[in-house]
Amino acid sequence: MLFIDKLIKEVKKKKSCTVIGLDPVIEYFPQQFKKKIHSLQEIGQRIFEFNKVIIDSTYDLIPAVKPQIAFYERYGLPGLEAFLKTVLYAQKMNLIVIEDAKRNDIGSTAVAYSDGHLGKIRYGNKTEYVFNVDAITVNPYLGSDGIYPFIEDVKKYNKGVFILVKTSNRSSVELQDVLVTYKRRKFKFYELVAKYVNEWAKQAIGKTGYSSVGAVVGATFPKDASNLRKLLPKSYFLVPGYGAQGGRAKDMVRFFNNDGLGALISSSRGITYAYLYDKRYNSKNFDRAAREAVINMNEEINSILDRHNKLAW
Amino acid sequence: MLFIDKLIKEVKKKKSCTVIGLDPVIEYFPQQFKKKIHSLQEIGQRIFEFNKVIIDSTYDLIPAVKPQIAFYERYGLPGLEAFLKTVLYAQKMNLIVIEDAKRNDIGSTAVAYSDGHLGKIRYGNKTEYVFNVDAITVNPYLGSDGIYPFIEDVKKYNKGVFILVKTSNRSSVELQDVLVTYKRRKFKFYELVAKYVNEWAKQAIGKTGYSSVGAVVGATFPKDASNLRKLLPKSYFLVPGYGAQGGRAKDMVRFFNNDGLGALISSSRGITYAYLYDKRYNSKNFDRAAREAVINMNEEINSILDRHNKLAW
Repeated sequence: MLFIDKLIKEVKKKKSCTVIGLDPVIEYFPQQFKKKIHSLQEIGQRIFEFNKVIIDSTYDLIPAVKPQIAFYERYGLPGLEAFLKTVLYAQKMNLIVIEDAKRNDIGSTAVAYSDGHLGKIRYGNKTEYVFNVDAITVNPYLGSDGIYPFIEDVKKYNKGVFILVKTSNRSSVELQDVLVTYKRRKFKFYELVAKYVNEWAKQAIGKTGYSSVGAVVGATFPKDASNLRKLLPKSYFLVPGYGAQGGRAKDMVRFFNNDGLGALISSSRGITYAYLYDKRYNSKNFDRAAREAVINMNEEINSILDRHNKLAW
Repeated sequence: MLFIDKLIKEVKKKKSCTVIGLDPVIEYFPQQFKKKIHSLQEIGQRIFEFNKVIIDSTYDLIPAVKPQIAFYERYGLPGLEAFLKTVLYAQKMNLIVIEDAKRNDIGSTAVAYSDGHLGKIRYGNKTEYVFNVDAITVNPYLGSDGIYPFIEDVKKYNKGVFILVKTSNRSSVELQDVLVTYKRRKFKFYELVAKYVNEWAKQAIGKTGYSSVGAVVGATFPKDASNLRKLLPKSYFLVPGYGAQGGRAKDMVRFFNNDGLGALISSSRGITYAYLYDKRYNSKNFDRAAREAVINMNEEINSILDRHNKLAW
């Protein structure tokens, strides 16, 4: 089954558009995970142990997780080993894994990234998956020839890709919102990127009518989302920045199509470290805090969608 | 000593602006490195062994190497272990290591990347370098808050950063060359990026007058280089795409300032796999082929600079 069709099936089954960002920061870990850390190796072990508890306490409520690889790369090989173990464990629990990596390069180098993260490598007579995530985020600055290798593997291995269009950070306006003139028409730079993404998306349309080529659209710019929803009718939006970063439930409706599909809303700290923000919880029951945060987030988003007659189930 | 001052010192000492791109592709390896590969682990070992020979046969001729991390990530943890060993070995041989990673993300995530690649991580009472490269390439699409964490570490740890401005691939024109209107003036998008880079560069000027904040400018667009040289007088250019990708010696003069400084010209395949392009060489003496390719490239570039009265030594 194509990535996008599998994703939509899981969204409907779980009745959830929520994605948990697995962004390990050991400083925020509950006390019992922070004790006696003497090496990178131990940090890697604790990261996986922590992620495992978060997955165990939420996997039945969500379609997907989004580990941000920067937070694993920070701890070198042991951190990346924790990343790989997290990917495998999440997939074992039937979660779709969207790797937030924002990789990008010229064609031949993009092939290497895509081989490693989405596709397979080849040596001797063997082929072998390496990172084997279900989808990856990529940066569009280098244009088509940096994107096509990922789309090839999207088609070949039933994977997905989400291309940065409008990011959630404040300074995204500096370059992404600048006015451009293209074919005698004027629009914002991110709209031009969206036009390219829409063309690329046509190469990987599933049975659901949606494409396995999606877009990253920050939760913090809901007005831009309404605009992008029209420019990218076939693309799923991966929407980071909900909650802790400032994205609000009532604005989320703009990221969805009328069929109630088209967006995955991602929250990281607000879920994984919910015990820090809610006085009823502490280090001992951080897993229950995370579960409740997911339940609340599902309810917030679903009730907003329901109010606008946009529930997909 | 600041990164940029150390770099310029090495450039003058070696009389070379050449950087070798260490982009391992096992298919191109000499026969003896390809035999009996049964696992990722063995691929990782061969990659390091190959890089070591290349470094041993060229380290006295060049100021820096540029490993492209995609070609290591492709082979998972063993590939990344080979990357780390290559970084350490190159530094042991007094080479500056510029990691071509094109990393990018929002502020808090850019901190994680910069901690891991340029700076130090912290746990308990300890701090520790992880990747500890001398400089890294980054993508500007997310704007200032994705760049500042790297610049902080550039200042704190005497490291360098090269920001993508104009890339060497053909489709770079799609987004980078589009016309933008900014403060009522019109220019190309990559020129707007250059204006930002020039502002960022002012934060890390060394004793040589150059900045540890540089720019990636592809060898394949020499006309754009003349223009960018004016927009970025203080930034060193990291110039990929020489040789195999199409960049020609006579055009390289445009990437340099009148003092003969300001550019590092990078070649990958044309050096590391020179034995494949030159009939006098074979698998057995690929190291001599690489050495001769570097000597030739140094001579080509230095004689062009000399002809324009731009030799820095």
